[in-house]
Amino acid sequence: MNYELSNDRFFDPNPAVKKIAQELYSMVKDLPIISPHGHVDPALFAENAPFPNPAELFIIPDHYVFRMLHSQGIPLESLGIHSLNGTAYEKDPRRIWELFAENIHLFRGTPSGVWFEYELSEVLGIKERLDARSAKRIYDNISEKLSQPQFRPRALFERFKIEVLATTDAVNDPLEAHQSIRDSGWNGRVIPTFRPDSVTDLTNKNWKQHLELLEVWLKNEITTFTHFITALEERRTYFRSFGAAATDHGAHSPLTLELTGSQIEEIFQRARKGTATPEDAKLFSAHMLMEMARMSVDDGMVMQLHAGSFRNHDQRLFDRFGPDKGSDIPHRMEYTNNLSPLLNKYGSEKNFTFIVFTLDESTYARELAPLAGHYPSMKLGPAWWFHDSIEGMTRYRQTVMETAGLYNTAGFNDDTRAFLSIPARHDLSRRMDCNYAAGLVARSIIRMEDAAEMVVQMTNGLVKKAYKL
Amino acid sequence: MNYELSNDRFFDPNPAVKKIAQELYSMVKDLPIISPHGHVDPALFAENAPFPNPAELFIIPDHYVFRMLHSQGIPLESLGIHSLNGTAYEKDPRRIWELFAENIHLFRGTPSGVWFEYELSEVLGIKERLDARSAKRIYDNISEKLSQPQFRPRALFERFKIEVLATTDAVNDPLEAHQSIRDSGWNGRVIPTFRPDSVTDLTNKNWKQHLELLEVWLKNEITTFTHFITALEERRTYFRSFGAAATDHGAHSPLTLELTGSQIEEIFQRARKGTATPEDAKLFSAHMLMEMARMSVDDGMVMQLHAGSFRNHDQRLFDRFGPDKGSDIPHRMEYTNNLSPLLNKYGSEKNFTFIVFTLDESTYARELAPLAGHYPSMKLGPAWWFHDSIEGMTRYRQTVMETAGLYNTAGFNDDTRAFLSIPARHDLSRRMDCNYAAGLVARSIIRMEDAAEMVVQMTNGLVKKAYKL
Amino acid sequence: MNYELSNDRFFDPNPAVKKIAQELYSMVKDLPIISPHGHVDPALFAENAPFPNPAELFIIPDHYVFRMLHSQGIPLESLGIHSLNGTAYEKDPRRIWELFAENIHLFRGTPSGVWFEYELSEVLGIKERLDARSAKRIYDNISEKLSQPQFRPRALFERFKIEVLATTDAVNDPLEAHQSIRDSGWNGRVIPTFRPDSVTDLTNKNWKQHLELLEVWLKNEITTFTHFITALEERRTYFRSFGAAATDHGAHSPLTLELTGSQIEEIFQRARKGTATPEDAKLFSAHMLMEMARMSVDDGMVMQLHAGSFRNHDQRLFDRFGPDKGSDIPHRMEYTNNLSPLLNKYGSEKNFTFIVFTLDESTYARELAPLAGHYPSMKLGPAWWFHDSIEGMTRYRQTVMETAGLYNTAGFNDDTRAFLSIPARHDLSRRMDCNYAAGLVARSIIRMEDAAEMVVQMTNGLVKKAYKL
Repeated sequence: MNYELSNDRFFDPNPAVKKIAQELYSMVKDLPIISPHGHVDPALFAENAPFPNPAELFIIPDHYVFRMLHSQGIPLESLGIHSLNGTAYEKDPRRIWELFAENIHLFRGTPSGVWFEYELSEVLGIKERLDARSAKRIYDNISEKLSQPQFRPRALFERFKIEVLATTDAVNDPLEAHQSIRDSGWNGRVIPTFRPDSVTDLTNKNWKQHLELLEVWLKNEITTFTHFITALEERRTYFRSFGAAATDHGAHSPLTLELTGSQIEEIFQRARKGTATPEDAKLFSAHMLMEMARMSVDDGMVMQLHAGSFRNHDQRLFDRFGPDKGSDIPHRMEYTNNLSPLLNKYGSEKNFTFIVFTLDESTYARELAPLAGHYPSMKLGPAWWFHDSIEGMTRYRQTVMETAGLYNTAGFNDDTRAFLSIPARHDLSRRMDCNYAAGLVARSIIRMEDAAEMVVQMTNGLVKKAYKL
Repeated sequence: MNYELSNDRFFDPNPAVKKIAQELYSMVKDLPIISPHGHVDPALFAENAPFPNPAELFIIPDHYVFRMLHSQGIPLESLGIHSLNGTAYEKDPRRIWELFAENIHLFRGTPSGVWFEYELSEVLGIKERLDARSAKRIYDNISEKLSQPQFRPRALFERFKIEVLATTDAVNDPLEAHQSIRDSGWNGRVIPTFRPDSVTDLTNKNWKQHLELLEVWLKNEITTFTHFITALEERRTYFRSFGAAATDHGAHSPLTLELTGSQIEEIFQRARKGTATPEDAKLFSAHMLMEMARMSVDDGMVMQLHAGSFRNHDQRLFDRFGPDKGSDIPHRMEYTNNLSPLLNKYGSEKNFTFIVFTLDESTYARELAPLAGHYPSMKLGPAWWFHDSIEGMTRYRQTVMETAGLYNTAGFNDDTRAFLSIPARHDLSRRMDCNYAAGLVARSIIRMEDAAEMVVQMTNGLVKKAYKL
Repeated sequence: MNYELSNDRFFDPNPAVKKIAQELYSMVKDLPIISPHGHVDPALFAENAPFPNPAELFIIPDHYVFRMLHSQGIPLESLGIHSLNGTAYEKDPRRIWELFAENIHLFRGTPSGVWFEYELSEVLGIKERLDARSAKRIYDNISEKLSQPQFRPRALFERFKIEVLATTDAVNDPLEAHQSIRDSGWNGRVIPTFRPDSVTDLTNKNWKQHLELLEVWLKNEITTFTHFITALEERRTYFRSFGAAATDHGAHSPLTLELTGSQIEEIFQRARKGTATPEDAKLFSAHMLMEMARMSVDDGMVMQLHAGSFRNHDQRLFDRFGPDKGSDIPHRMEYTNNLSPLLNKYGSEKNFTFIVFTLDESTYARELAPLAGHYPSMKLGPAWWFHDSIEGMTRYRQTVMETAGLYNTAGFNDDTRAFLSIPARHDLSRRMDCNYAAGLVARSIIRMEDAAEMVVQMTNGLVKKAYKL
């Protein structure tokens, strides 16, 4: 049952729009991939080992996939997810794969579904649909591919034409994998991103341990807030020495607020004693965003803000399996008031780029597009997470572009842990960008020559400029 | 001026999409109707009397219709709405009908408008448009139909191919009409739904009277919260004996919260003394949602939550005409935090189905789709009330499906008091579902064979599964 | 490089929809312009002087234009914006124009972009695209036009077929320009609108001075709240003597609340002493909206509410350049609860029209359409400010119409300071209205004869009725 993906997929079915979209897409489809933000493990490229099997490639590490199966009552254990308390979990990758295949219908019309089809067909060259009947055959087929040298991570990196890939790395990460990549002589450009959440979020239960790790790096005790700041600045310098271009901040809320020196010191001391309150934690995060903006003005690192996820909403699941298991749920966000202190102080600084993401689409047209359409330092990140999808990207363009304009957006990023999905996600994004621009041309809102420039910007120009790559 | 409804109505005008939609629609248009949630009066089928006249059929009982006329300055009295304070109201159904006909232009582009056209043309077989000139003739025409046996409620029920119709019934309802239906030997399946709002909402001015009615059922005094719970459990058992499959909860807010035994007892005692505060009422409702979920886990009844309507916003209108007169206005809702206690405790229970509805569409993509896309017990109800419309259903699909997937939704329900509108609403819903699936096929997001399965699920499969019918 | 605007611009590319849209558009494109709300300076018509140059026509007075350039790091000074602190700014209009031309790509896909193309091509008759190369030539070309008598304000007013143009005027404005227009014998209908924000908003730093100006008008001291109310009533009478049909209120929030006589008097006295708190200011505004509604019931002036902008978000920019410089940012709004007091008291008054605008689109379907679809006095204003755009108007129709119906909306208004953009904005609006109605016809939701009536209403009928013009 041979089949190919449609060349016209995701384009508007209107022939006039589709024709323009095809023409625009032909201009950008083969451009290199810039991936300035994501969660691929750099060890993949340090080790360059073969991917072990289809289940460990597609299911076990991808919470986009297994949370959908879980939502239909399929236990995570049966999908090979390790429980923390030692209960049994499925270890046979074939059985995990077959369970996935039996439930592949759950992904109809979802981004995971279309990415998966791309990965199977275009990355792995398997021209058959997955279902319960084809599961075994496709499993063997994939396994055979994975054993070939051209399916190792570095070979795929090159085949995907990735010009630069940024990982996301905790403040205390020694960046050993990044060091190994450099030492190996391989010339794929993989750079780290500085993410200090573990020490800026006082609600983190291991905050004190993370602080102690920071002391190791500082080769000194951290007994005051000033020491703490110095340690963070040193870590940023360390990250930059590996080519890091950006920092990333995953806050519960985008509140920003500058405390006085004594206020922040008092909170810091309470945190050290383990007596910080929830209010302390809120203020500490808000103040730390101000500090991070200040450091970015100083050292030129691009500052990314990913706010608005209620992490580990399902407490029992978290206790059993740990974080990133599909129960992070967005909640309502407010940016106009919350970002006011930061934008007032740093939003017009020449050396500063501040890229804001949201999971609350009601803020696109109401708050974020007007803010990005005013403050020179602020750019709007692409449709994030649940909204990195056909309809999500469509809404993003429709609600953001008229107010912010194209040039106050930061291009696309894939934000993925799933390495094989990178070309699938960029291809989808390029198609949606071309389709959007085609819709403007077909309605005579812009001219074709404008659209041609715009799609190249959307694919390549904006992201390089925003991330200073 | 003969006319017919277009066979292609509501489908995308794009020929490629329309053709696929037509093909899909042909697969589902004649499937039986499942109506798991609505407000049709069961006495209709117990008595099986002819509908009295066009005004009492289409206008007087339908707040969707008369609120639109009221918004243009037409007094409710002139539309035959009984005032509570004894002031005069129009009693001539012909004059009410003519007033409606003169203002039929107000319904252009509204769901009430398209439902009405269907009812006139498809249910009553009247192939003429209503306006001021045709009003009298159509009135006579409808009246003549209503006198025929094939337009009595039971005959229509069968003609509409209703497989099951759930009514919504207050906790203290004796279910006499349901008993009469059973006794009559008629085999139309009409089942009750358990709605305890009158005793779970302490802001209800008649709360004490409702509690006393509950005592009658319990054949015992209700002096403690434990008695209260026992009484509710007994009522649920009674409802289930009539085939009830679900409960329904219309809360001002979706807050859920488990109080301690002494906390809830204290609030209950204050309520009995009439000294409960607004804060008490809020906490009581929140706690009762937890109790209801617990009972559903125990007895298997599906739990529906319809939160977010500010009831009787127009106080003067309420004082004159009572509830359900078109001034219930949605307000902003929050689910991620509010449902956390309930979902954490019961959201992964195998025996539990929790169907959530919203009037705040900004929560679809942000909160409800991610929640339904994680918790096995939670399903997302269809576009509700104001959003049960062409554009509303389109937005629902666009914002919900990519994250929740089709299979975490609960199919369609008509939620209507207006019996004649049932086939109109289901037909509209089927058309929109087919149009949505056709859009996916036309953009190569899914295959035609997937779409064929999906539209049957949307029409029939999902609702039966969600409501355990 | 001659080019013409497409006759089909902004219509759906689907041929069936486009054809209907064209037909509908032909019915309304030449109807007179009704402009019931905007910010054109009446002195333009009092003086009737030639527009000085392209930069002062298109860039310097239009914050829609210069805020986009500013967002890309172009200093406002280089765009000719006068700083308040006396620092240098560009005075050569040619250089300003060329800077704009070099960055014209920033406006791709924005409403400012399409309005500008219309103004250049249709108003000024310049059939060349603006870019860095054509900038000088187009500058000269425009300058030459501006020197001709047919490009003076009154001549354009007539050419634009403006039937009535309402300006927006502060409570203490002497309306001298309006007097001059009357005295001149010119029969263009330019009427003022009463905007009392400077005296109803206690957070205004110059509140006391504005109050003193009011005393001059009253020819009496204002020592009590009652005097204050009397003064406002007298000013309304004065405005009405110039033909004013409406009032306008730009509140930070739509909170309405009736205080007792002593409460409001106490706040007023604190305000006079300069000791009013932020809470006082909030309550004062809320109470003043109630007073304004009461006065509108008395004198028949239409009440407009434009709430929800966080004015002067960029404090440093405000300090340097003053208000209306592109940093007014919308924030989240709530209407259902906030408008409850006002609508309960006045929302069913026959003599009262209350037109509500929003910058928070999440309230369209959730709050505003249901409110307008119930209360006879309330109408919903058109898509406002950032949402006065192709996508913004589309979302407005899609989310508002099914619940509110067409006849509870207030037609279009251009709300502009940029006189030349008036025909561009009305043309865009008419095209989008026709396109919307065509979409309904193409999907058989309404008939063509209904659509023909609707587009005339949208262009002309609704606005005249809502504003009593």
